Amino acid sequence: MKSGKSVTPTRETIIEAHERIRPHVHRTPVFTSQAINRMSGADLFFKCENFQKVGAFKARGATNCILSLSSEQLVHGVATHSSGNHAQALSWAASLAKTMAYVVMPTNSNPVKVNAVKEYGGKVTFCESTLAARESTLKEVLKKTGATEVHPYNNLLIIAGQATAACELLEEVHQLDIVMAPVGGGGLLSGTALACHYFSPETKVVGAEPFQANDACLSFTTKKFVPSINPTTIADGLKTSLGSFTFPIILDHVTSILTAREETIIEAMRLIWERMKILVEPSAAVPVAALLENSDLLKNKRIGIILSGGNIDLNTLPWIKS
Amino acid sequence: MKSGKSVTPTRETIIEAHERIRPHVHRTPVFTSQAINRMSGADLFFKCENFQKVGAFKARGATNCILSLSSEQLVHGVATHSSGNHAQALSWAASLAKTMAYVVMPTNSNPVKVNAVKEYGGKVTFCESTLAARESTLKEVLKKTGATEVHPYNNLLIIAGQATAACELLEEVHQLDIVMAPVGGGGLLSGTALACHYFSPETKVVGAEPFQANDACLSFTTKKFVPSINPTTIADGLKTSLGSFTFPIILDHVTSILTAREETIIEAMRLIWERMKILVEPSAAVPVAALLENSDLLKNKRIGIILSGGNIDLNTLPWIKS
Repeated sequence: MKSGKSVTPTRETIIEAHERIRPHVHRTPVFTSQAINRMSGADLFFKCENFQKVGAFKARGATNCILSLSSEQLVHGVATHSSGNHAQALSWAASLAKTMAYVVMPTNSNPVKVNAVKEYGGKVTFCESTLAARESTLKEVLKKTGATEVHPYNNLLIIAGQATAACELLEEVHQLDIVMAPVGGGGLLSGTALACHYFSPETKVVGAEPFQANDACLSFTTKKFVPSINPTTIADGLKTSLGSFTFPIILDHVTSILTAREETIIEAMRLIWERMKILVEPSAAVPVAALLENSDLLKNKRIGIILSGGNIDLNTLPWIKS
Repeated sequence: MKSGKSVTPTRETIIEAHERIRPHVHRTPVFTSQAINRMSGADLFFKCENFQKVGAFKARGATNCILSLSSEQLVHGVATHSSGNHAQALSWAASLAKTMAYVVMPTNSNPVKVNAVKEYGGKVTFCESTLAARESTLKEVLKKTGATEVHPYNNLLIIAGQATAACELLEEVHQLDIVMAPVGGGGLLSGTALACHYFSPETKVVGAEPFQANDACLSFTTKKFVPSINPTTIADGLKTSLGSFTFPIILDHVTSILTAREETIIEAMRLIWERMKILVEPSAAVPVAALLENSDLLKNKRIGIILSGGNIDLNTLPWIKS
């Protein structure tokens, strides 16, 4: 990664993003759970982005990005490489703006996710599953179509869009001591950190990531970018490296990044399902897992948690051996 | 069953029940799903009682009942036989009123449910799994403790309490053509029917039950009580027979009772999980299953659906072979 200079969405950029996407995305509810409060010793407020359009916060950034395109750009569509929620979000947001989304996906992508992208109207180009193949295939697609590339997280409009989840949480729940969000590429965490910085400066922001994909934690601690190299974790949304835009924002505005073990992530996911009766994907459970592993640090605090998404293959649950 | 004369909770009884329980139970949200609307051809409004206290609408009736007891009755506690949500609801509501709940449960009850009852403070007495054993054991408990029996559905205060879920739905969503609820013993369905009768008389009420436990449908069609005899269905909350209070109310105020096959119940349950990102138990999915099997009848209607509960053992999901 090139060392990027700190370019940061302003307070106004985030307010504009919120105005722009508000008519199109859900204002998701904030849930509480007395049982999980008891177990964690903290007072928790869950922002349920698993109920968001396409089942994840990614709808916010994608919508903000696409609705910011010029009419000329809209003619040629948007493109990305992604095997996850961003692919679906971009396809959905493109159909909203009546433009085309070209999505490069590895051939070994989950067929459920490939179908979801197609259902939203996205045009899928398959490639080998290496990063090099994904990037070179995307380049070809961009060249052929003239589409605008929309990076899943290292993009200021994406970051501003993801910030709006925390904006709504802060509007609804006051005097939060901490807001927690999972961190993969850092789009959600950097957006959350900026939202708190601008709209609730007393509120600290804490990231959470799998211990087995702890590149963001290492980068944050050493203040030097550490890439994520083929990590193995059930939290498949959190495998990516930080970006040149997201890392500096996280360094400036995040208080700490905690990690959680795989078994605690599964335990936290099951806890949320059982006690809150809602489906969250493993990545969304990581902040709760980090909380369970660090309950001393967080005891008696008022903590907002962004439940990032609920897209999961119901044929294989981690606690059921098939 | 003795043929009961039609004794019906009044409009005022239901309003009082709502006032009584309001400070203690959740006002559950109403969710919608564009995907399920598309698939069913109807406009659906889901009253999410899976988010209710103890994970099911049963908290409403139990609370109404216990808060209506005299102070003398409260000294001696309440008792019931139940292996399901009523056992948990009664234990929870008893702890609210600082009284004791004595629950007779068959020895083959799900240990998860036994533990839940104990966690809420209920005192469990085990018995054999026959109805005769349950009833005789309950009689002994009542004699020994002086507790007041609280029947899971054949009780006017229980019916009035269950009615409040539909009351909230009707307050929030106007001009519903139909409200659907699952039917087992008929507490929820009779309460729902009365709520519509009193507060939205244009709204029809439709019951839904498993085809493999279609005693309510048969009773309704023949206008003659047909008992439920050891039915086999995944919707374990809907195995019981109608009661002497619930059946006449259903005859008077319900338009029809639809049935659904086991595979459609499982399909509907999975659909709700996948598309709405919420956990519902099989019994709660039965109205959606009936809707899928009878979409011609219900096309283009505005339909409220009471999602009755979300208590499920996550170790065994019906679509995963373990």
